[in-house]
Amino acid sequence: MGGLRVRSVLVTGANRGIGLGLVRHLLGLPNPPEWVFAACRDPKGQRAQELQNLASKHPNLVIVPLEVTEPASIKAAAASVGERLKNSGLNLLINNAGISHYKSFDSNTQEDMAQVYATNTIGPLLLSQAFLPLLKKAAQGSPGSGLSCSKAAIINMSSYAGSIQDIYLWEYGQAISYRCSKAALNMLTKCQSLGYREHGILCAAFHPGWVQTDMGSSAEMKPPVTVDESVGGMLKVISSLSEKDTGTFLDWEGKVLPW
Amino acid sequence: MGGLRVRSVLVTGANRGIGLGLVRHLLGLPNPPEWVFAACRDPKGQRAQELQNLASKHPNLVIVPLEVTEPASIKAAAASVGERLKNSGLNLLINNAGISHYKSFDSNTQEDMAQVYATNTIGPLLLSQAFLPLLKKAAQGSPGSGLSCSKAAIINMSSYAGSIQDIYLWEYGQAISYRCSKAALNMLTKCQSLGYREHGILCAAFHPGWVQTDMGSSAEMKPPVTVDESVGGMLKVISSLSEKDTGTFLDWEGKVLPW
Ligand SMILES: NC(=O)c1ccc[n+]([C@@H]2O[C@H](COP(=O)([O-])OP(=O)(O)OC[C@H]3O[C@@H](n4cnc5c(N)ncnc54)[C@H](OP(=O)(O)O)[C@@H]3O)[C@@H](O)[C@H]2O)c1
Ligand SMILES: NC(=O)c1ccc[n+]([C@@H]2O[C@H](COP(=O)([O-])OP(=O)(O)OC[C@H]3O[C@@H](n4cnc5c(N)ncnc54)[C@H](OP(=O)(O)O)[C@@H]3O)[C@@H](O)[C@H]2O)c1
Repeated sequence: MGGLRVRSVLVTGANRGIGLGLVRHLLGLPNPPEWVFAACRDPKGQRAQELQNLASKHPNLVIVPLEVTEPASIKAAAASVGERLKNSGLNLLINNAGISHYKSFDSNTQEDMAQVYATNTIGPLLLSQAFLPLLKKAAQGSPGSGLSCSKAAIINMSSYAGSIQDIYLWEYGQAISYRCSKAALNMLTKCQSLGYREHGILCAAFHPGWVQTDMGSSAEMKPPVTVDESVGGMLKVISSLSEKDTGTFLDWEGKVLPW
Repeated sequence: MGGLRVRSVLVTGANRGIGLGLVRHLLGLPNPPEWVFAACRDPKGQRAQELQNLASKHPNLVIVPLEVTEPASIKAAAASVGERLKNSGLNLLINNAGISHYKSFDSNTQEDMAQVYATNTIGPLLLSQAFLPLLKKAAQGSPGSGLSCSKAAIINMSSYAGSIQDIYLWEYGQAISYRCSKAALNMLTKCQSLGYREHGILCAAFHPGWVQTDMGSSAEMKPPVTVDESVGGMLKVISSLSEKDTGTFLDWEGKVLPW
């Protein structure tokens, strides 16, 4: 193995939580990527302070403005990344940005449902569409015939809460809008794996564990997994993915989860 | 068995296709319901002609205006049904209305995704919320402790195309927006079964078969199943559902499908 080796990677929702953890770990790899694109809503604002600090130390880190519910913002991000990459493609797209609403079953409104779906499901679809030419270019430029994340891949940050078979932490919160959006994201991942296999792009859905971030935590509960543990585990699993793993749903320790 | 016996039922999308077939079969049962509520967008218009003809012959058929993407329309429908039912509840809610877009993978827009989700997934959630008091009342008014569709039930018309495990008819059309919406509807059904069990309400998702309707048919292809076969099969399965079946995904012949 020897850890992940990837020339270029883009992470959405990179200014805090798991996304920020991914960026840190990628920059700290023994063979760090040539380009790490850290996408966030407000690159110049207070909420991107830690990314700005990292960027001042790592010239291979590029902060990209991105609002995943705005098609124009997505297109602009793909254009600016394409320019930076010149003639090479993007190896790895990590659709990490996400939101949740912990509302009880019957207080979910039409707006809640639509907003969570727009962020967690439609966003990853549109991102993948916009970055497809760059992912294809990366696949074409990589030697070998199998699929891998160092060649070209889309990783969708799903959740165990998206498993219909095995309803996760129901006692902790019904979160209908979130569960529905992640089940749909799992479907999207499976479809992408079928549609993009011929282009040499691996697609997989991940559950990062129950992680100590703003989203994972609550006043009563400290989640069991740290960001470092989650991200370290996921990058190890990502580095080992091959042909047989496209279209699967994996957790941060590499376990296959039921749909 | 002796067929389905249910005091009151509401079917959405009842003016054509599978919804109209359900209404016809319900009215033709040996013991027809006291009330069949046929919900459709434009009860007075040309598209509801067949329902109007049926209503002139069947005084137990009530046509209810309903646009499933409009919360106000859903609330008005629940109020008018509640008035008609006086002190009894609604036994069976069939969320049948649905749309599909057969667009290829990369031509799916944000609007397509949002519209299909609003109709196929958010609609059934809002309907179930609005009719919950009437469903609870029906459950309370029915003797016995187990779950059944003659007591109180929500049937969500899903599709095999919502199975992530077993991607259905991929060669026929990618229909990403549709597949994602139905996977999310399956998740909703599973959550409803957990949340509503204590209220005595059975919840299940159905695949009606590949059926000869406007949605199922295309210029090149005649689907294998007629509306009568599909609806006859589903009503037979519905009549036999019990406690153990809540939260499952079944086809029109009673086969359990993978999520
Ligand atoms: N933490 C867990 O236990 C857990 C478990 C399972 C799955 N996950 C998944 O893991 C991913 C990351 O979660 P997290 O725990 O790191 O969450 P988090 O701490 O709440 O961070 C969410 C990130 O997504 C960004 N984001 C949200 N909406 C966005 C939008 N419309 N456009 C662009 N960026 C947006 C946020 O940016 P702003 O700062 O601008 O809001 C932030 O960077 C999510 O997809 C989540 O569903 C987390
Ligand atoms: N046919 C198949 O092979 C097949 C296979 C699997 C699953 N299904 C599912 O079975 C259900 C019925 O399908 P079908 O084949 O009978 O389709 P269809 O012939 O196209 O009829 C769809 C029905 O839904 C109604 N509808 C659509 N959007 C609505 C809205 N926003 N508000 C209220 N009503 C709305 C339509 O009303 P208008 O006349 O006003 O448009 C129509 O009555 C759908 O949920 C579909 O996904 C069908």
